[in-house]
Amino acid sequence: MAQKPSIPKGTRDFSPSEVVKRNYIFDTVKRHFKTFGFQPIETPSFENSDTLLGKYGDEGDRLIFKILDSGDYLSKIKRIVSDTDFFVSFQKEVIEKLKPKIDSLNIDVDKFSDNAEYRNNLLDDLISKKEILKNVVDVYAKEKNSFVDFLNDKETAFFIASKSLKLYIEILIRTKSIAFHKMDLFIEQIINEKAKSQIYDGIKSNKASKYLSEKALRYDLTVPFARYVVMHQNEIDFPFKRYQIQPVWRADRPQKGRFREFYQCDADVVGSTSLLQEVELVQLYDSVFTDLKLEGVNIKLNNRKILAGIAEVIGAKHLLIDFTVALDKLDKIGPEKVKQEMLNRGLSKDAIAKVEPLFSISGTNSEQLNVLENLLKDSEEGTKGVSELRFIVDTINELGLQSAQLSIDVTLARGLNYYTGAIFEVAAPKGVQIGSIGGGGRYDDLTGIFGLKDVSGVGISFGLDRIYLVIEELNLFPQTIDKSLDVLCLNYGEKEALASLRLITTLRKCGIKADLYPAGTKIQKQFKYADKRNVPYVIIIGEEELKNNSFAVKNMKSGEQKTYDLTSPDEFIDLIK
Amino acid sequence: MAQKPSIPKGTRDFSPSEVVKRNYIFDTVKRHFKTFGFQPIETPSFENSDTLLGKYGDEGDRLIFKILDSGDYLSKIKRIVSDTDFFVSFQKEVIEKLKPKIDSLNIDVDKFSDNAEYRNNLLDDLISKKEILKNVVDVYAKEKNSFVDFLNDKETAFFIASKSLKLYIEILIRTKSIAFHKMDLFIEQIINEKAKSQIYDGIKSNKASKYLSEKALRYDLTVPFARYVVMHQNEIDFPFKRYQIQPVWRADRPQKGRFREFYQCDADVVGSTSLLQEVELVQLYDSVFTDLKLEGVNIKLNNRKILAGIAEVIGAKHLLIDFTVALDKLDKIGPEKVKQEMLNRGLSKDAIAKVEPLFSISGTNSEQLNVLENLLKDSEEGTKGVSELRFIVDTINELGLQSAQLSIDVTLARGLNYYTGAIFEVAAPKGVQIGSIGGGGRYDDLTGIFGLKDVSGVGISFGLDRIYLVIEELNLFPQTIDKSLDVLCLNYGEKEALASLRLITTLRKCGIKADLYPAGTKIQKQFKYADKRNVPYVIIIGEEELKNNSFAVKNMKSGEQKTYDLTSPDEFIDLIK
Repeated sequence: MAQKPSIPKGTRDFSPSEVVKRNYIFDTVKRHFKTFGFQPIETPSFENSDTLLGKYGDEGDRLIFKILDSGDYLSKIKRIVSDTDFFVSFQKEVIEKLKPKIDSLNIDVDKFSDNAEYRNNLLDDLISKKEILKNVVDVYAKEKNSFVDFLNDKETAFFIASKSLKLYIEILIRTKSIAFHKMDLFIEQIINEKAKSQIYDGIKSNKASKYLSEKALRYDLTVPFARYVVMHQNEIDFPFKRYQIQPVWRADRPQKGRFREFYQCDADVVGSTSLLQEVELVQLYDSVFTDLKLEGVNIKLNNRKILAGIAEVIGAKHLLIDFTVALDKLDKIGPEKVKQEMLNRGLSKDAIAKVEPLFSISGTNSEQLNVLENLLKDSEEGTKGVSELRFIVDTINELGLQSAQLSIDVTLARGLNYYTGAIFEVAAPKGVQIGSIGGGGRYDDLTGIFGLKDVSGVGISFGLDRIYLVIEELNLFPQTIDKSLDVLCLNYGEKEALASLRLITTLRKCGIKADLYPAGTKIQKQFKYADKRNVPYVIIIGEEELKNNSFAVKNMKSGEQKTYDLTSPDEFIDLIK
Repeated sequence: MAQKPSIPKGTRDFSPSEVVKRNYIFDTVKRHFKTFGFQPIETPSFENSDTLLGKYGDEGDRLIFKILDSGDYLSKIKRIVSDTDFFVSFQKEVIEKLKPKIDSLNIDVDKFSDNAEYRNNLLDDLISKKEILKNVVDVYAKEKNSFVDFLNDKETAFFIASKSLKLYIEILIRTKSIAFHKMDLFIEQIINEKAKSQIYDGIKSNKASKYLSEKALRYDLTVPFARYVVMHQNEIDFPFKRYQIQPVWRADRPQKGRFREFYQCDADVVGSTSLLQEVELVQLYDSVFTDLKLEGVNIKLNNRKILAGIAEVIGAKHLLIDFTVALDKLDKIGPEKVKQEMLNRGLSKDAIAKVEPLFSISGTNSEQLNVLENLLKDSEEGTKGVSELRFIVDTINELGLQSAQLSIDVTLARGLNYYTGAIFEVAAPKGVQIGSIGGGGRYDDLTGIFGLKDVSGVGISFGLDRIYLVIEELNLFPQTIDKSLDVLCLNYGEKEALASLRLITTLRKCGIKADLYPAGTKIQKQFKYADKRNVPYVIIIGEEELKNNSFAVKNMKSGEQKTYDLTSPDEFIDLIK
């Protein structure tokens, strides 16, 4: 019953040389985290579903891997089925009640089919009044407690019910031309088929999984960290600088460079509103990338307050997201298309004219800040954003960076749903075609979701998979990183092997990676193995060497061979260490 | 809507000091893995269910965490429900067909109730013939393809069906005394209640979860490693020495010291049958525990061939597991109770007399091997086991151990389901009350389950959580392990902070863990923070120091304070590094 083994889509095995290269990056990052005073924590791979769900939006919820409860999930399945049946009967009843109303409306069926506006208005009108719907929901809710619970709450019940009812009503009206007895049949069929699938959709989006799963794999490190801070608030000395390097899981459609399991690597400071933290995080990026020999990375810097200020001064405060989403594309599509998109997204021509200066903003960071300061002089929030960035830029100018560059980028608009101050993004050195290799920002209310208010946080993350690809592409991994063995002793037989093992024991105690070929097979085969393993030195203790109490060392690169005294291998140890 | 956060039962958060201590153990182990020529691999956290299920026995299967498929699991639920209904109707039909047969048997109902043997024989007889059962299974299988699939295969269908049918037949017979119309009702009820729950059990144990889950979290590192070796066999240079340190997950009932997520730490060699591997693994244990200062661990050594040989010479080959399970308790319950248990488990008095010498076996490893050699002289397998152990013991004697002890322990019987040669187990130093802190052995057919035959493996693992507890109990973690900061600069205001940050930048570049208190709050509060963080040196750059271009360093232990030149901090750096 042998199976041909495989691994799940979007996951990876890491072979020795990959692990070693990944660890090189991990270790470098960790070393700098530590010198910057960050401390490591680790959280469990899975959290209670409550902790994770609802924190990443609907899309995020869908991408969270849920863990099937162990034990009796079949009784839970029964409950889903029973509740679904109940919901179907609820839908049927609403339609029964709607029928006479629709008949009384005297609807123009042809117009309904051809004219989308007429159709939509009519449907909205029918649904939006909600009276019928409301009555039935109330009746059902009274009859069955779990009904409301099943749909989370009455509001959601309305939403889902009205969404699917819209479809039925449309069919009801369209089928007016069909003979009445056929229509009934048709509706019945609709209810049994389409309706059910719609209802199932509704259930799905309403977290049916909560019936089957109480735990889920973590989706990122930020929410578990917030949970950690709240749970351990009495043990933590604030400001708390923590780093965390652990895998996360996302049920994303696997594609090139996107995985279902991947490591995140975050450093955050909580409990300090000082802008010195932002300064240090810029230095931290610079130190890590310099140490990785990844010179010339560009640390882009923006501030949510500046974006909000711009939206304010152009009179589009309510369109902040639309405005920034369009602005974010400046690099890719150019100013004309950005303006068009802003128009499409509802910004006035007047407003767009006011942001015109942003499209051509250039010069040093200071010069750009001057332009922004002028543009934002009437916005308190915007002015604050400018002064925050000025502090960061000035302090970094004072301290200097080793190899990275810090640039104001007013188009940078990542994480606007949570960032409240500085926003960072790191671009790979010029010439490497890859997205950002790091990012972060300040979020004023990290732990509020778990009930601990007024804890400001600021953090950055390193995109490990992409950093790996960049280092690989630029050939910047240390030359000897792949060396898994310093020496290999060949095996000439039992007695010789014992002498070899004694030497190897000594070498290993000195931290030298040494191994003995385990079997006395043909020497040629053993050399081939040494070659494949990329071993720089091969040690030979054959009959002759054993007699002379010596060992021969062959340099695999040069082919040179030299003999040493077996009783004092120090000379060789010094050579190799 | 703030939630009071918690984490799932059986999982843990690790705080900075715990992570640091755990990493101290991990890093020590890894360092020795590397000098012994082992290479790291990593495998995904979840595997395809097929890869894991059926590898750990029924109990193991139950403890595997299954991941809920994303997407449309509701249609799968419908299928479960429909298949269950189908199965219920199948059961009903079998019972209908059985009724006349039972009537014709003229069963003595009283005897049936009182006499267990009579009852069991009768039930077995009814079921074992299987004709009726077989016919119905065939008919149903023809009618509905998914029916057989649902129960995995026909064999399992028989098994489950006959198991639950036994119950119905019993009820059928017992209720003969009940009026016929009542009996019908009774059976109906049984089918609806008991039967359903039995059927649900059947479904559960038959991997109903496969309808909802295609992926599962790994349960150990051995099966994923076997899968890795088979999948990557063409890239691997054998013998392949790999280590792997990753978390595994088990849905065990959480209890003290047992977790649902914990790290395993394995080193294995595959593709070499040489006993030198066993020798090296003993040395590896010795090196790691010596380096961890955990001196005096006892590496217990046995060989499955010896246990099999003993079972053979005492004529209890078929009772190998029973014999070894009893022998394994010698330490805990003493020879008399072991003998009693052996008797209970079906060993003859004669056989037990023959193993008598084992109960008092003592002396050096060599002396014990002599006793065993004599006892096993008539068993080829046993003799081979003795000679294997003799090679390991002799070679280790030649090479010497640093701090561990190697002892033959013929009662050691772990992993007999898979180990085929040497068996290892490591006991903590005397005086520490804890189970084994490591174990391993040789398994001749590691990769056979995935279709790659004749690949022998031998490996050991380190019980990290227990090693942590032992080191903690013996107070053997390095004194300074908890030091997360070397120096903290106090913050006397904006200008002073900038000077401090410049000094800190220099210190960090030298690898010193340095930090600046982020806000210019009361100095007392800052000292308190330094105290809590256990910082050995506090740096003071106040107004005066800034004026003099100097910095003061306060030794937090001695209270001494010394002033250094800010323009050349090398003297201080030398002190602190």
